[in-house]
Amino acid sequence: MTVFEIVALILFAVFVQFDSVALPTSHAESFHGVSYAMFQDIHVMIFVGFGFLMTFLKKYSFSSVGFNLLLASFVIQWSTLTLGFCHSWSNFSHILIDTESLIAADICAAAILISFGAVLGKTSTLQLIVMAFFEVIFYSINETLCLQYLKISDMGGSIVIHAFGAYFGLAVAFVLYSRDAVGHANEGSSYQSDISAMIGTVFLWIFWPSFNAGLASGDQQQRAVFNTYFALAACTCTSFVVSSLLDREGRYRMVHIQNSTLAGGVAVGASANMLLPIWLSMLTGIIAGVVSVIGYDYISPFLAKKRIHDTCGVNNLHGMPALIASVLSAIIAATAHFSTAMQAAGIGVTLGISILSGLITGYIIKFSIFDDVDSQDFHLDSPHWEVTIKR
Amino acid sequence: MTVFEIVALILFAVFVQFDSVALPTSHAESFHGVSYAMFQDIHVMIFVGFGFLMTFLKKYSFSSVGFNLLLASFVIQWSTLTLGFCHSWSNFSHILIDTESLIAADICAAAILISFGAVLGKTSTLQLIVMAFFEVIFYSINETLCLQYLKISDMGGSIVIHAFGAYFGLAVAFVLYSRDAVGHANEGSSYQSDISAMIGTVFLWIFWPSFNAGLASGDQQQRAVFNTYFALAACTCTSFVVSSLLDREGRYRMVHIQNSTLAGGVAVGASANMLLPIWLSMLTGIIAGVVSVIGYDYISPFLAKKRIHDTCGVNNLHGMPALIASVLSAIIAATAHFSTAMQAAGIGVTLGISILSGLITGYIIKFSIFDDVDSQDFHLDSPHWEVTIKR
Amino acid sequence: MTVFEIVALILFAVFVQFDSVALPTSHAESFHGVSYAMFQDIHVMIFVGFGFLMTFLKKYSFSSVGFNLLLASFVIQWSTLTLGFCHSWSNFSHILIDTESLIAADICAAAILISFGAVLGKTSTLQLIVMAFFEVIFYSINETLCLQYLKISDMGGSIVIHAFGAYFGLAVAFVLYSRDAVGHANEGSSYQSDISAMIGTVFLWIFWPSFNAGLASGDQQQRAVFNTYFALAACTCTSFVVSSLLDREGRYRMVHIQNSTLAGGVAVGASANMLLPIWLSMLTGIIAGVVSVIGYDYISPFLAKKRIHDTCGVNNLHGMPALIASVLSAIIAATAHFSTAMQAAGIGVTLGISILSGLITGYIIKFSIFDDVDSQDFHLDSPHWEVTIKR
Repeated sequence: MTVFEIVALILFAVFVQFDSVALPTSHAESFHGVSYAMFQDIHVMIFVGFGFLMTFLKKYSFSSVGFNLLLASFVIQWSTLTLGFCHSWSNFSHILIDTESLIAADICAAAILISFGAVLGKTSTLQLIVMAFFEVIFYSINETLCLQYLKISDMGGSIVIHAFGAYFGLAVAFVLYSRDAVGHANEGSSYQSDISAMIGTVFLWIFWPSFNAGLASGDQQQRAVFNTYFALAACTCTSFVVSSLLDREGRYRMVHIQNSTLAGGVAVGASANMLLPIWLSMLTGIIAGVVSVIGYDYISPFLAKKRIHDTCGVNNLHGMPALIASVLSAIIAATAHFSTAMQAAGIGVTLGISILSGLITGYIIKFSIFDDVDSQDFHLDSPHWEVTIKR
Repeated sequence: MTVFEIVALILFAVFVQFDSVALPTSHAESFHGVSYAMFQDIHVMIFVGFGFLMTFLKKYSFSSVGFNLLLASFVIQWSTLTLGFCHSWSNFSHILIDTESLIAADICAAAILISFGAVLGKTSTLQLIVMAFFEVIFYSINETLCLQYLKISDMGGSIVIHAFGAYFGLAVAFVLYSRDAVGHANEGSSYQSDISAMIGTVFLWIFWPSFNAGLASGDQQQRAVFNTYFALAACTCTSFVVSSLLDREGRYRMVHIQNSTLAGGVAVGASANMLLPIWLSMLTGIIAGVVSVIGYDYISPFLAKKRIHDTCGVNNLHGMPALIASVLSAIIAATAHFSTAMQAAGIGVTLGISILSGLITGYIIKFSIFDDVDSQDFHLDSPHWEVTIKR
Repeated sequence: MTVFEIVALILFAVFVQFDSVALPTSHAESFHGVSYAMFQDIHVMIFVGFGFLMTFLKKYSFSSVGFNLLLASFVIQWSTLTLGFCHSWSNFSHILIDTESLIAADICAAAILISFGAVLGKTSTLQLIVMAFFEVIFYSINETLCLQYLKISDMGGSIVIHAFGAYFGLAVAFVLYSRDAVGHANEGSSYQSDISAMIGTVFLWIFWPSFNAGLASGDQQQRAVFNTYFALAACTCTSFVVSSLLDREGRYRMVHIQNSTLAGGVAVGASANMLLPIWLSMLTGIIAGVVSVIGYDYISPFLAKKRIHDTCGVNNLHGMPALIASVLSAIIAATAHFSTAMQAAGIGVTLGISILSGLITGYIIKFSIFDDVDSQDFHLDSPHWEVTIKR
């Protein structure tokens, strides 16, 4: 960590500059349009949204919100460098900082935090930092490949953020698999931790339209907002219905409401800015809600048997909805000036890179020099934090 | 619910379109001015503000924040249709989606959530959805009547949102009255639930200026913000003073701080955009604070005796302050290009429609086919949720 | 309090007017640029950020978030008057209300809330209001002196807000010193209170760029945002590293993560808008993080021995980082069109006025007529609030 900060300092000193609009010569009139407001919305999602959503573990809340802050702070610095290099490697001179680069750094953090969700409670901070270090590199390569070379449509990042983050994380979780993780005594929520997790859920829900529209502009930005707004609303109603249908006594499960209600935002992300009619966004949200809720009750337990223990169920909130988004965007692409083939190639490349690099990264951080966590300490704050009062 | 989503899909498919500014032909420069930022402020109020404010019930927090999310998601879809029809029924062609329509849908949700507060803990989700289904229709009719035909001044919606929502909810509560609801064992807060309720209070407090100014423009929008800002500040100081005066030992009551501090925002809502001097906004805030605090200690218990059990005390936070707003706006109207008579007519019509339609709706949802809640299950999550740990 | 509201009403009635842009004659196009969005970001910091950050005390959470709301509401009214007078006393006619005056009132509240942090749990509300009454006057004088006469560079208010608030508060704490306050049984956090404190931390962290850039414009505003963003990220990583290094078992301490992660925002505040290269902002953040964490473990206990009991450790989060900011700004000033001498004079004047006026204010509120709190009631809600359930 200390080493990183020193290296980062030097790299920033050598390569990073303010974009011309942030220089006196620009006579710029502060920030352009809603870009700054949307950046702050996304900023809330990354640090409050993801951070509190993961506090659902009753004995791991310090780590959830604390490590989320640490990881995201690390990633926004590191990804500013890696994305800067990748986006202009052919004729590289300097990395320019502007609102867009801040948004790009924040949404890269989203991908890493999704992976964090898959291994939540089972790693040391050192393992997390090393994982993030490598994931950011592979993320930057894949994102550049998909958007600059394949030129796929993925405004909300369903493919390059959600699919990448989810399957990278699941690959790491697969490598780090420990039988003791399944049905672990500490893995569970308390009444209070379920409430604080809802803080995360609701802020993610509220600002998701900004997430899908943050890097869009003009009429595309507006459609991205409107489509996401209605997709989430339809997805939420559906999640409640399906959650209650799956319970013998017709009750709701908090894990569904905390997560599946958001799946609609992922599912429309790749095409929300296109001429996607609102009813189709809603239909997509409905499908995502159904798939996500079923995922928590049936697919996650199944994966756990297959040595993939997914603590937050990122496959249900990010993975599968991202696959839905890929299919939808491939269909819509035909109607727009995008190619269905390229959309297919994009998700293919993303799955390949994320899973492969996730496996490699998993084997690297498995080395005990990165002080891996003993399974009896899983989902427990006390090994990492001075816990004032044991509860 | 499932049925609704299917019907909604068809209606959206047939009638809903993007506004021209959200189409490629518009060459629109993304969002105009602060409209999007204010929409997101209001969005936070609806989902975080109302949702967490109602978590004060110690054994009903899952339902408070969860059903708030469900109801609001349902309402923003349904009201987009009903408001769209009502606003242009004479020459109806299509419903256009733009930032204003999103704000309109969100503030309609506010009215329904106010009614939810009156019956909090005493209904099933099915009853809530049916209640919301009818309330949205009557809300749309009343809102169109007041704003388009009577042309009343009500920028912050004190009359069409707060008065309507409060008295509709109280009417439903009157019909659903059960003696057991009064002084119910589960009706009460815990130290933690009072803290999480404050999350709601503070976010409502912070963004209220955006709520009262969201649909205004130009200099009116600025005055709406400034007047609301100072009205809330004065109301808050007053609420603390009166709360302490009403306690034998001079202590404060959380219920006053959680609710009455917001009454000033309601009371200036109907005229905040007019040439209302700031000192008058503050005076209005002070009066609202006094009335609201006294309401919690004296009027709510009195109403409970009269078969009106108001769980959240919406009469104190929304009802009576809205009446103050009506009086103030009627006075100010004379000085502006509005008619005192019309303001009076507006509040009259609103009270009539809200109470009448509330009574009807109450009798409808009372039918056991909407699985009403047994009084011993009042204010309890466990009948509706898989509660991991009983507390 | 009642008296204040009446006097305030009269003063507002006589002196306060809407700025011309908020009048019909202006034909203003609502709010200019991002000013309103940034105001709301700062508004969240004051009421949610400061309010919840101080809820870390397990038995004083009602008071922390409640008194924060009361104090800030009082201050934004009172400082609107005092700042209005000071800023134009030479040729005073009226106080004009616009977005900038709202931001100025909010950031004055920040200074008072910092002082509140130093005496948290050891005063009555009456003492707090009297303290705030005097502090706002001295704050306005010092701020006017530094910015209008010495013309120092202090865009983020590191000197006039953070240094002033911290040392005023420490001076008051020194006067109110009671041996019983040190190692008091009620002074401590619970698992839940540490989590709710993180709500405050993360919102302060997220919106700090808006705090440092709120009153800037053009390219300066952009640089203020970018520098603060990276300073906070570097500071956060550093705080985690140092926190773990200081613990025998390498664990993190919540108090460091809740506070020190924010020190970077203070340290760059005075020069974030200048041509400060990003790597230097990061270096500043790193230094601030180290100093702040060490401060909590070594300097605070030392000060407590010297009769200065600093409940929230405002010296570590605001005081020392503000001194770092002063040094940095004095250096940078030479490169910009600011004078190093003036920067030095600015911090000198600020320290002098804050400490002197703090001592005076301390002796005033020590009089028992302001019902001071008995030491056995320190850090306890029950003397001030009707606590539903004793915990």
